[in-house]
Amino acid sequence: MMTDMKRGRGRPRRQGADEEILSVARELLRDRGYREFTVDAISERTGIAKTTVYRRFPSKGALVAAAIAPMHARTDTDDVTQVLRETACVLKLLSSPEGEAIDVIRAVVEPRRARVAELLKNDGSEDAELRADLLIGALLTRLLITRAPLDEEEAIVEAVLA
Amino acid sequence: MMTDMKRGRGRPRRQGADEEILSVARELLRDRGYREFTVDAISERTGIAKTTVYRRFPSKGALVAAAIAPMHARTDTDDVTQVLRETACVLKLLSSPEGEAIDVIRAVVEPRRARVAELLKNDGSEDAELRADLLIGALLTRLLITRAPLDEEEAIVEAVLA
Repeated sequence: MMTDMKRGRGRPRRQGADEEILSVARELLRDRGYREFTVDAISERTGIAKTTVYRRFPSKGALVAAAIAPMHARTDTDDVTQVLRETACVLKLLSSPEGEAIDVIRAVVEPRRARVAELLKNDGSEDAELRADLLIGALLTRLLITRAPLDEEEAIVEAVLA
Repeated sequence: MMTDMKRGRGRPRRQGADEEILSVARELLRDRGYREFTVDAISERTGIAKTTVYRRFPSKGALVAAAIAPMHARTDTDDVTQVLRETACVLKLLSSPEGEAIDVIRAVVEPRRARVAELLKNDGSEDAELRADLLIGALLTRLLITRAPLDEEEAIVEAVLA
């Protein structure tokens, strides 16, 4: 607490503290994963008061997002596979993210994804599992990322199976 | 509370109470969406004590999953588009699901999905937005639903762009 007060509010040191918090946050995510990640541990490892951490990053989610979202963001690459690989790399840091809404989504989607994969297999489709991931994934992207309407099932199926 | 005690623990009425809870839960989801959904409201609308609701469904998530996951589960259809459409229909009940982990996933994935769509557009791809949803979606399905490794980026890209 004292270190926090000594540092003061508007001093240049603050930018450095932000960087230190984010760097330790990435380290902690690699060591422990998202579920075991706590602001307490950040405070312990950096010696920066929890109140200071929370003043800058109002929640665990905000801190994790700030730590990993911009990481390796190679907006200069023109290779889709590379962008996907980098995305996968960052998402891996969140290994098995949990939450009430995610549990509900999984309960809804898991049996339906399995049914899609089964239908594709019966149809003799190659890569039935992968194609099921794609088809179901388009819905998940719209639900969670773009919040676009979930209403283009024919177009989705055509893009993957045509 | 009294109604709950009068009903007793092991009486046949209980199955009916479960059905009533689930039916009102679906109603409430349609009226309010997932975020505004509360066990308090379920208790109010059914007149069933909150403790009874929680005895059967230990969390809001468990209750919502039980209410919507089996809905219209037409495992008899052999049409992939129909399964997807039904899945979309159920997911719509969760409109804009929120949670700390989901916020982090969105912060990570949104700019990368936009980058993928941009690259596909530059490449003259038709349906660049849809294809970006598919590519990113395959990663989301693995991260959230099957928990399969995120390591087949080439195969994913080939399935969507080949």
